[in-house]
Amino acid sequence: MKNKPKVTVWNEFRHEKADPAVLAIYPEGIHGAIAGFLRAGGFPVRTATLDEPEHGLTQEVLDDTDVLIWWGHMAHGEVQDAIVDRVQERVLNGMGLIVLHSGHFSKIFKRMMGTSCNLRWREAAEKERIWTIANGHPIAKGVGLHFELPHTEMYGEYFDIPEPDVLVFVSWFAGGDVFRSGCCWQRGFGRVFYFAPGHETFPIYYDENIQKVISNACLWAADHKQHTAEFGHVPEPLEPLD
Amino acid sequence: MKNKPKVTVWNEFRHEKADPAVLAIYPEGIHGAIAGFLRAGGFPVRTATLDEPEHGLTQEVLDDTDVLIWWGHMAHGEVQDAIVDRVQERVLNGMGLIVLHSGHFSKIFKRMMGTSCNLRWREAAEKERIWTIANGHPIAKGVGLHFELPHTEMYGEYFDIPEPDVLVFVSWFAGGDVFRSGCCWQRGFGRVFYFAPGHETFPIYYDENIQKVISNACLWAADHKQHTAEFGHVPEPLEPLD
Amino acid sequence: MKNKPKVTVWNEFRHEKADPAVLAIYPEGIHGAIAGFLRAGGFPVRTATLDEPEHGLTQEVLDDTDVLIWWGHMAHGEVQDAIVDRVQERVLNGMGLIVLHSGHFSKIFKRMMGTSCNLRWREAAEKERIWTIANGHPIAKGVGLHFELPHTEMYGEYFDIPEPDVLVFVSWFAGGDVFRSGCCWQRGFGRVFYFAPGHETFPIYYDENIQKVISNACLWAADHKQHTAEFGHVPEPLEPLD
Amino acid sequence: MKNKPKVTVWNEFRHEKADPAVLAIYPEGIHGAIAGFLRAGGFPVRTATLDEPEHGLTQEVLDDTDVLIWWGHMAHGEVQDAIVDRVQERVLNGMGLIVLHSGHFSKIFKRMMGTSCNLRWREAAEKERIWTIANGHPIAKGVGLHFELPHTEMYGEYFDIPEPDVLVFVSWFAGGDVFRSGCCWQRGFGRVFYFAPGHETFPIYYDENIQKVISNACLWAADHKQHTAEFGHVPEPLEPLD
Repeated sequence: MKNKPKVTVWNEFRHEKADPAVLAIYPEGIHGAIAGFLRAGGFPVRTATLDEPEHGLTQEVLDDTDVLIWWGHMAHGEVQDAIVDRVQERVLNGMGLIVLHSGHFSKIFKRMMGTSCNLRWREAAEKERIWTIANGHPIAKGVGLHFELPHTEMYGEYFDIPEPDVLVFVSWFAGGDVFRSGCCWQRGFGRVFYFAPGHETFPIYYDENIQKVISNACLWAADHKQHTAEFGHVPEPLEPLD
Repeated sequence: MKNKPKVTVWNEFRHEKADPAVLAIYPEGIHGAIAGFLRAGGFPVRTATLDEPEHGLTQEVLDDTDVLIWWGHMAHGEVQDAIVDRVQERVLNGMGLIVLHSGHFSKIFKRMMGTSCNLRWREAAEKERIWTIANGHPIAKGVGLHFELPHTEMYGEYFDIPEPDVLVFVSWFAGGDVFRSGCCWQRGFGRVFYFAPGHETFPIYYDENIQKVISNACLWAADHKQHTAEFGHVPEPLEPLD
Repeated sequence: MKNKPKVTVWNEFRHEKADPAVLAIYPEGIHGAIAGFLRAGGFPVRTATLDEPEHGLTQEVLDDTDVLIWWGHMAHGEVQDAIVDRVQERVLNGMGLIVLHSGHFSKIFKRMMGTSCNLRWREAAEKERIWTIANGHPIAKGVGLHFELPHTEMYGEYFDIPEPDVLVFVSWFAGGDVFRSGCCWQRGFGRVFYFAPGHETFPIYYDENIQKVISNACLWAADHKQHTAEFGHVPEPLEPLD
Repeated sequence: MKNKPKVTVWNEFRHEKADPAVLAIYPEGIHGAIAGFLRAGGFPVRTATLDEPEHGLTQEVLDDTDVLIWWGHMAHGEVQDAIVDRVQERVLNGMGLIVLHSGHFSKIFKRMMGTSCNLRWREAAEKERIWTIANGHPIAKGVGLHFELPHTEMYGEYFDIPEPDVLVFVSWFAGGDVFRSGCCWQRGFGRVFYFAPGHETFPIYYDENIQKVISNACLWAADHKQHTAEFGHVPEPLEPLD
């Protein structure tokens, strides 16, 4: 791939407006922080948020997007079903989808997985160590065998997802839990990656390793435009029938 | 398992009413034919159909069902979303789900898969040979390496499903196509099996091998009642935090 | 399955002879301890050890074994290649294989996996908490979402194995590591389960949860005797060629 | 990757010397034909054959190889075990391995798989149609939903391999068989691809689609040099133990 894929960073963008502590960490919103490091890495980046018309995800925007990043939490229910349909169709048609943190409970992630996507959680600012399980996987490039986040929200098993095609990361928590924190799935022509870190009250998206993982995931998930799906009625057989 | 699992056979039951040729093959409905051979095999069986209240799938019925078999085609859109929600939740909680033939386009199968579940098809009464790919899998017990159906509707690749956990059967068609005709997935606590044969204008469900596969699948998919899911807020860590 | 499967417990049986501290924990050998709880659970059990003729694994013994359990460590290199060939062939023909702890480096496990099976390790008597990742899997029956071992040898990632078909357990260690400690694979007609706990200087095999897991694994891995493999030259086509 | 990966094409190179009919099709050997189209596509290519010292696969050659292609048939047993060890170690360390046709029974493929790799076969010059099952997979780029080979040796199920990580191609044969003809696995840091077509008495490697698949597979399997394996004794815990 000569040029880097086009990324659209979607953020619910409500915590930042409602909570000064979150705004202090992410003055341009979580989407602004993610867009920032991706742009610095050479990716063409758009942002879109819940309160824009069509949540900023018009058909035109999606058709011009190779990878969609999704962060949401307190307003999952406000995302219109018609937009979820549109995003799902675009993923099946090749667009990559990267779902972050509390996006595990978003309509689009539950739609793509077919499961409840439920988990266990605790806010105790505890230490998380992220282990690379799929050694050599492109999403883990440059982060080594393990790296740490000093303060995170704990997300723990059981995590109700389909068995990942590839389990890239498993997290260790100081409080005694483990979590499948980086998971890959193929759905139609599209690639889906879930990455757990990213609670809004911690400066997770400024962490260098987190930025590497998300950047790597954008390269991995990008629409490769090799679409050859042929569906429907094929009345003529390829071989003569008696 | 000492006793055989409780099976509910769900059928749309419209083709039989609309088309005398189908009724001639299945005078008691497709559900009646499937229920018949399962009962003969010792399974406790209920049936349920689209036009019953709540499509026959009340919470009480689902709670008393270990495996749900699903056949639908011309009226997928009439299945109420609330009932689809209920069935999905019950599958995630352990009930097995066996989706037959044109059920690939049912709301519940698309819900569980997260993909379009689209495929290629042709009605030419051609020969289908079903090959056992997962040799030794319990669903293939007793059917040997391959068996034939003299006249079937062709379902061909590309089949837009998540990569199966186990690919049990691949079909060969006289007209030159192949199809992943028997596929297993785990979703939550539930097991899902898709089995392709079963066009309403052919007496597929009277075939001895087809009956073996569906009976085997009921045993394989049955709710094993080992549910230990614990989700949600766990404020107390297992290990002391500093 | 009406009767419980026939289990052969294989142990290298050298640590017990060389180290009084180990013998004090396992006066009848590690194989004796494992055979003990399995017999108490109703399994017909044989034992076999390295220093017996043919390591106790004659063709006759293997043919009469549904599940082989393997514990080895200091003398992997003394296991004869011809016996490894024989065990591999029997697994591919349906016998279950349960590999314990340091057996990760045994000839038979490396043979079945095709990888180095290397890992990271530390002997510091630290706490291990085993998490059930494949909720509802028969191997995890009865052990709940997590259980603890107060003192174990740490086995940590990266663990060089093929991606498991099903990842049943992930371990958390007090020292900061994680490990895929319970993994399932299908190989030919045989089922393979690797289970990490079991260092010879700790009384791991007396732990109730460990005994449950190994007993469950014997039921899961047992030879199901549905062998229909047909290999080799098939000069006659099933369909007429022009 | 800016530059194309370095490919070493290994061929047993015995049929060509023993059978004039094979030599007529492949005057420079099967390795010569494969090297030819890869070089034309811009890949740096070496060849190596059985009768060279160390079978042409010195440590130096392997260390300078990103992808190794393997064709063998009548002399699998003559490949030295020490060279098989060396190739396996290099694959686990990142080198891609593409095994062609009768290479399914090579020592190196059986080593990497852990299974018998047996199958059913028939030489009847029948038509094979190769179906793309993993739509959008990079190995299938440019070959469409299906393509045909007018005359091939039939390889049919059951094929005794571990369930592929991704099943890319399934073949339909005129004689009534199916076969998983394109399969991907990750092993250590290395990627393995098995591709079934390629009988020595047919000009398979001159086929444009076959050349596309093998070229695509070289790009897919290439050593990505992201090796971060750390194995062995790690006496110091990451977290303080009590």
